[in-house]
Amino acid sequence: MYTDIMNKAAIYHRPESEFAFLSKDNLVNIRLRTALDDLVQVELYFGDPYDLSTISSDNENEDKAIWKHEVAKMGKVASTDTHDYYQVAVKLPHKRMHYLFVLTSKTGEKFIYTDRGLIDYSDERISEKYSPFSLPFFHDVDKYKTPEWVKSTVWYQIFPERFANGDKSNDPENVKDWEDTEKIGRGDFYGGDLQGIIDHLDHLTELGVNGLYLTPIFKAPSNHKYDTVDYMEIDPHFGDKATFKQLVEDCHARGIKVMLDAVFNHIGDKSLVWQDVLKNQEKSKYADWFHINNWPVGYEGTKEFEPNMSRDYETFSYSPHMPKLNTSNPEVEEYLLAVADYWIREFDIDGWRLDVANEVDHQFWKKFRRTCDVAKKDFYVVGEVWHSAQTWLNGDEFTAVMNYFYTDAILDYFVKNKLSMNAMVSQLNQQLMLYRDETNGAMFNILDSHDTERLLHACAEDVDLFKQVIAFTYLQPGNPCVYYGDEIGMTGGNDPDCRRPMNWDLENHNPDRFWFFHDLIALRLKNSDLLTMGTMNWQFVSEEKGLIQLKRKLGNKELTGTFNTGTHTNMIDLQKIRASNLAKINGNQIEIAAKGFVISES
Amino acid sequence: MYTDIMNKAAIYHRPESEFAFLSKDNLVNIRLRTALDDLVQVELYFGDPYDLSTISSDNENEDKAIWKHEVAKMGKVASTDTHDYYQVAVKLPHKRMHYLFVLTSKTGEKFIYTDRGLIDYSDERISEKYSPFSLPFFHDVDKYKTPEWVKSTVWYQIFPERFANGDKSNDPENVKDWEDTEKIGRGDFYGGDLQGIIDHLDHLTELGVNGLYLTPIFKAPSNHKYDTVDYMEIDPHFGDKATFKQLVEDCHARGIKVMLDAVFNHIGDKSLVWQDVLKNQEKSKYADWFHINNWPVGYEGTKEFEPNMSRDYETFSYSPHMPKLNTSNPEVEEYLLAVADYWIREFDIDGWRLDVANEVDHQFWKKFRRTCDVAKKDFYVVGEVWHSAQTWLNGDEFTAVMNYFYTDAILDYFVKNKLSMNAMVSQLNQQLMLYRDETNGAMFNILDSHDTERLLHACAEDVDLFKQVIAFTYLQPGNPCVYYGDEIGMTGGNDPDCRRPMNWDLENHNPDRFWFFHDLIALRLKNSDLLTMGTMNWQFVSEEKGLIQLKRKLGNKELTGTFNTGTHTNMIDLQKIRASNLAKINGNQIEIAAKGFVISES
Repeated sequence: MYTDIMNKAAIYHRPESEFAFLSKDNLVNIRLRTALDDLVQVELYFGDPYDLSTISSDNENEDKAIWKHEVAKMGKVASTDTHDYYQVAVKLPHKRMHYLFVLTSKTGEKFIYTDRGLIDYSDERISEKYSPFSLPFFHDVDKYKTPEWVKSTVWYQIFPERFANGDKSNDPENVKDWEDTEKIGRGDFYGGDLQGIIDHLDHLTELGVNGLYLTPIFKAPSNHKYDTVDYMEIDPHFGDKATFKQLVEDCHARGIKVMLDAVFNHIGDKSLVWQDVLKNQEKSKYADWFHINNWPVGYEGTKEFEPNMSRDYETFSYSPHMPKLNTSNPEVEEYLLAVADYWIREFDIDGWRLDVANEVDHQFWKKFRRTCDVAKKDFYVVGEVWHSAQTWLNGDEFTAVMNYFYTDAILDYFVKNKLSMNAMVSQLNQQLMLYRDETNGAMFNILDSHDTERLLHACAEDVDLFKQVIAFTYLQPGNPCVYYGDEIGMTGGNDPDCRRPMNWDLENHNPDRFWFFHDLIALRLKNSDLLTMGTMNWQFVSEEKGLIQLKRKLGNKELTGTFNTGTHTNMIDLQKIRASNLAKINGNQIEIAAKGFVISES
Repeated sequence: MYTDIMNKAAIYHRPESEFAFLSKDNLVNIRLRTALDDLVQVELYFGDPYDLSTISSDNENEDKAIWKHEVAKMGKVASTDTHDYYQVAVKLPHKRMHYLFVLTSKTGEKFIYTDRGLIDYSDERISEKYSPFSLPFFHDVDKYKTPEWVKSTVWYQIFPERFANGDKSNDPENVKDWEDTEKIGRGDFYGGDLQGIIDHLDHLTELGVNGLYLTPIFKAPSNHKYDTVDYMEIDPHFGDKATFKQLVEDCHARGIKVMLDAVFNHIGDKSLVWQDVLKNQEKSKYADWFHINNWPVGYEGTKEFEPNMSRDYETFSYSPHMPKLNTSNPEVEEYLLAVADYWIREFDIDGWRLDVANEVDHQFWKKFRRTCDVAKKDFYVVGEVWHSAQTWLNGDEFTAVMNYFYTDAILDYFVKNKLSMNAMVSQLNQQLMLYRDETNGAMFNILDSHDTERLLHACAEDVDLFKQVIAFTYLQPGNPCVYYGDEIGMTGGNDPDCRRPMNWDLENHNPDRFWFFHDLIALRLKNSDLLTMGTMNWQFVSEEKGLIQLKRKLGNKELTGTFNTGTHTNMIDLQKIRASNLAKINGNQIEIAAKGFVISES
């Protein structure tokens, strides 16, 4: 019940979750949610569960034992428009911990927040350790782990059919001219392939990225290859296994990690297994590979996006061409896990990006994760989940998710004007508080992709706004990804316009854009620990001036980004500029024009 | 921020958790937490994620699509002293669901609660399905499942060394006389064994229980057998495998399920593996079976409860005699999983009760659960967890936990006077809201055991209070357990006094107590669906009169318990009495004396 003293109903803590987790060096991170601006102090009381003085052959006295505990002050790490979040990391001598929160209201009243709720503070309740929260034993095997390399990675996403045509001999029939980009059809082919990527690795190296994410490359009839027909084969229009092996080796030689796209939620309707089901119906040996609701099953259609409303079989969305795989069928499971294992062991890939990951069962993903972990140390698994995703991010399924939820808030403020500045900050903080710090530092942050309009297009070709959004995103904990071509100035609306062939005519490359990305990537990688794991401090958020300032801090390192999202020039104090746009030093101040930004070191 | 309109900060929902879960018939249960008595209406807006009108080849129009949704009114299912909980179960035509909450404040203002937080209500936001919560796809394999039989079980707990001596030939040396219970030592042996249990199964049948829980029976030097030395052998003082097989068969023939106690957190220090470590130190092939912090490892001691402060090796609590097993070592894992499998497959047991379950790693328990599920359909796994336990109860570790947390609140009010009546109701409701409904209906509810004083002793031998507490507990969703001897009137303080040998002298049996239990057990089992899964409605809670009334309802069935916990007689309206104590009909009313109760049917 709300009282003037304190908003008791707002308080939330959940043991063994993003509210209580182990980080490196076995620090225990404890987080608490409270109402916004409601408390003056939050303390963590913690100690060993088996306090010695309670171990006695005379159990009658157990209640009188004194709990040996330490006290740590919790700091406010994030605020939303409704909540403050407090957090502290503590180190324990033993491997187990009981804990309680002591909260002090603005009126000076103290409460103990226990596993059974809130009670008035008394020394006695602390001494008797009344109903504490528990981390019963710290098991390394239960720890959420992130590969270290992920936290110092800037990704580069390639849609292989459109990046470069390195081998004309494997071109599809009726391939369009690479330069013919006036009117791109959804079903067009341009002939891009793996050899084309190999040929242009210098471009990636020059740009400075060190992670390559390829949308699907397995055998599939479409240009996007999300309608897999054979997970064990490279699409012949893209090349062969030898070429792919070469690509991975060349990338690794350059310090570039390689991540493939796994479409395990559904399979293409041209696949042998689905064709067998269509032909033999219930008698097909693959009948249980799918989710069939009614026999006979089938669909007549030609248009690519026609919906299938019959629900005779489950599909991705309502697309009849993408029948959903029954991943709890042991045969399907075995097949897909063999696929996961094969491309890691034989080709040494470093990550799997999982398409429509949220619609596949958790039991499958747990086995998938174990398969990957056994096949390769420090493997990265990132799922496509468009909503809050705690269930997948407890350490035994994904390392991280495609962080749309986070970058959408950025776009909604900077580009789409759907959110106020404060609402954006609130949403970003809320989303950070959905996950463990390590998870936030491993997120895959994209602003555009083959599924969306290009960022430049979303910015209505406003290059300064574009740069501001990019710079803002590079300061966030998750790891950024360059969508191929953004770095040379390409633009484009929604699919298929965002999938234009990469322009390799150097005269058309925009050097300003290229070096902008180059410098930001270098800054990001130089400060990767700070930017993935450092604290977030929104120091200066002025809706009126349009000024927003974010300070990241880790140990002695500090980077501050200041963004002028208003319509007038704003001044800030002089700082060591590390990156900027539309900013200049003016005496002992920095003048930032509208749409400008400064990233500075203190 | 709190406003007069609504306590926004109090609202909480968590997808894919106890706040959003599948139940039988694929109903989706959605729960929401709000501040107490803060809202006049909570509605669930839900529908398919892939609304057809958003599927279009013209993605530019996607934002304008209208979300097809249904609306369900959510009912208030529980309240604590700070929160209301709303819940509704809805059935969907498709296997996936997006949802939003629409909240109406007392002032009539409406808000939409989304995956990104609270926003003002507008039709447009609903139409565009602004940032919905998601249940991406309903997978049966991810569903939390409870064996049906568990929900119609009343347990009987036996501490085998003290229940009955059926075979004098296997008695330990220096066995004490069964009747010599004046001064029981912690290390005493009385000679109880499995044959003794077989001999007295008629007693269980007559009482009406249908679940038998045995504390450990594997080879171990102590009388309690929690210091296992061989998990593959029955303790020779208890009998042999043939006897145990007979016991299970006899129980099954009587419709009694059998649950064993697995102590996998630690092993006895007299076990071969620990002795080998002591002897060979780092060179022992079992060196990695334990958590060794410093070599050389060892301990000299004789007293049973002396603490080991050295921390050279991890133990249960500080007991040097119970070295903690390293369950993430594949050899240990394989061994213990083989144990789990063996007793199910060879002896057909129905459940494992897991000792100190919270201190073992989650990865081990997930494998353990799969092992059990593969070995036997509808197997029951109940963990010893003394605190909130959501992490273990998501369907892939335990079915339920020993519900101390719940029964403690009952004892704290009725017996120990530590809580007010309202505080008890608040705590019970809070705990029910920690778990899915199915979980609550599968909980293992004990009021006393070999680890605590007997309930009668806790009640200071007040039989009426004792009966009131029992009756109250039998009305709760979790399944009750009779601690051997309670039903014949036995009493006793803390261990070892609570472990007195069962009194088989019929003249000393208390028939009043026996038939009290008999009738309550029969009532419980006759109404097991209602009592495990029915709604909870605290209709009448009067701190002043000491009257507390709980109505359970499921479909047309209804049972109401009324408990007079005050000091004066109270009157209630006439009802069909199904069980009672200290109550009598007086005209068209029922008179309930202090410490009395009535369970009635409407």
